[in-house]
Amino acid sequence: MKIVTCVAPVNIAVIKYWGKRDDKLILPLNDSVSTTLSTEHLCAKTTIMISSEFQSDRLWLNGREENCENPRIQNCLREVYALSRIYEIDGDISAIARQGSGSACRSVLGGFVQWNKGDQDDGSDSLATQLAPANHWPEMRILILVVHEKHKKISSKIGMEQSVKTSELLKYRVSHCVPQRIQDIKQAILNKDFERFAEITMKDSNQFHAVCLDTFPPAVYMNDVSHAIVNFVHCYNKLKGHNALAYTFDAGPNACLYMKEHDVPKVLGLLSVIFPFPGEEDSYIKGIPINKDTIPQEMQAAFGMEQQMEGSLKYIIHTRLGNGPKELKSQNEHLLTDSGVPKNLVI
Amino acid sequence: MKIVTCVAPVNIAVIKYWGKRDDKLILPLNDSVSTTLSTEHLCAKTTIMISSEFQSDRLWLNGREENCENPRIQNCLREVYALSRIYEIDGDISAIARQGSGSACRSVLGGFVQWNKGDQDDGSDSLATQLAPANHWPEMRILILVVHEKHKKISSKIGMEQSVKTSELLKYRVSHCVPQRIQDIKQAILNKDFERFAEITMKDSNQFHAVCLDTFPPAVYMNDVSHAIVNFVHCYNKLKGHNALAYTFDAGPNACLYMKEHDVPKVLGLLSVIFPFPGEEDSYIKGIPINKDTIPQEMQAAFGMEQQMEGSLKYIIHTRLGNGPKELKSQNEHLLTDSGVPKNLVI
Repeated sequence: MKIVTCVAPVNIAVIKYWGKRDDKLILPLNDSVSTTLSTEHLCAKTTIMISSEFQSDRLWLNGREENCENPRIQNCLREVYALSRIYEIDGDISAIARQGSGSACRSVLGGFVQWNKGDQDDGSDSLATQLAPANHWPEMRILILVVHEKHKKISSKIGMEQSVKTSELLKYRVSHCVPQRIQDIKQAILNKDFERFAEITMKDSNQFHAVCLDTFPPAVYMNDVSHAIVNFVHCYNKLKGHNALAYTFDAGPNACLYMKEHDVPKVLGLLSVIFPFPGEEDSYIKGIPINKDTIPQEMQAAFGMEQQMEGSLKYIIHTRLGNGPKELKSQNEHLLTDSGVPKNLVI
Repeated sequence: MKIVTCVAPVNIAVIKYWGKRDDKLILPLNDSVSTTLSTEHLCAKTTIMISSEFQSDRLWLNGREENCENPRIQNCLREVYALSRIYEIDGDISAIARQGSGSACRSVLGGFVQWNKGDQDDGSDSLATQLAPANHWPEMRILILVVHEKHKKISSKIGMEQSVKTSELLKYRVSHCVPQRIQDIKQAILNKDFERFAEITMKDSNQFHAVCLDTFPPAVYMNDVSHAIVNFVHCYNKLKGHNALAYTFDAGPNACLYMKEHDVPKVLGLLSVIFPFPGEEDSYIKGIPINKDTIPQEMQAAFGMEQQMEGSLKYIIHTRLGNGPKELKSQNEHLLTDSGVPKNLVI
């Protein structure tokens, strides 16, 4: 009997992946760049157990048993079994992750990561590489603003398939806009040039959602609260006189804000003025503990944005960059009991 | 003493104008195509009076006195005075209107109108031409869905200036997408091919808003209710099995829907189910009188869209295409009294 538990991080793209050149191998139309978040506050935890006493392969997701026959799961398992046969991982783990979910391949590395689209038909060069580790830019902080989702949204898989089929602007984005942005943001990251990093990140988020809107029928992921957050960031940067804060939005209404550590108290102070929280302050801001600034009346007036409806934001997660996936050795971290069933089983 | 009163129509672009090649002469980057609405339900009414007894030029807008020194007003007045000197209008009136507000040049003609961007530096060939009169497609009906505006919006003048400066996608739209669409929609109009007209109209509205979103900072004109209307139209077309309904949105959240006459009762019936109106039905639907369909429970269930919040729509205007500006001869239509001041003066 053998048991292993790992945590894998969330990654947030600053140059977005949208559109596949191969649907089966999950090969992207363009390179993308992301930051890997710390697993302290957001992660996916997996326990794998092998035993000669088990009758068959079984899989639980959030305590609920799932069918192992799903082709994406099978693709990954086949690759992992092949690797395990030689008893050490000498393949590129990002190539395996990519076949589960494209952007997941960026989560196998920490810090700043580039997913190279690759040119080979078999996808052998469509791999993730690290641009810089998390400790290259230790002042970098992240706020995840969780927004109420009112509508049934289009899955990103379907959305990007539709974009490839119908958006004329996607072609231009892929061929003309992204290559330059990849070069520019790599330079900004290596030089720790926050101004430039922020500008490119915001522009690329906007362009990704522009392509979604140019899709037919349009794929709309941001809502009025998301756009109010965009407005908030531009107001904050105007107040500061430079790009001290950046937003990016994935295929959903939640915002990811980047800023340097010293800006966090003021940003949180202003957020709680503009997006008032109806409940207890403690449950509003999760993650790294911090005292937010009290915002003087004059600053609020000068900010140039009206207060939004109470409860527009569900909560905020305050986090930082992280080092990628890791194994948890402690016995009580395992999700499975000694007999191989989930400790928290949902029936 | 002489007095003249005219009404000018609203026009709605189906291929959008966004971005100038000359800010002073108001010359556009691309051709646009619009429909001119009937002046029965929506119009701008103007009375001009000349008299040897008047001491100076005066101008009232909605009963409020305005400064005549505004350069755009001066540009138009200069041109009109020049024309009046020869006592008949033999210039192209659309060239004058264009200098007041670009898209206004399309309102000087009825039916389906193309504004040619022109190639001359002096703008002499940037004129509106009629593609087909209103009676070419008499079944065409229009619903204007007026949406509550919550936010201070960016003016279209500022928005398009920002797009020209910052949107990479705008360049591609202007050079690659619009020219083909202009050809295609002209064919669709001449052939009365509603399917094709609807698809191009919707795609061009989406692309225009995509370019606005690709602008930095982004110019956001549609809101959650606008996007719910987009969803409504796609649900309706799915229900019908073809494109029987089309949306287009200008620089604001209001929708303009195109459909053929026989679809109006069902569209209005479904609209009042999905966008329930809190007040009296009479004040909800203005314009051409019509009995909306009662929607059976099964159709409502099959429609595939949740009911929106009561009061999401302010009201609906049901109208048709029209023949352009016209003079009103009746004495009681004049907005000015015999002494040359507004009958409804706002102080």
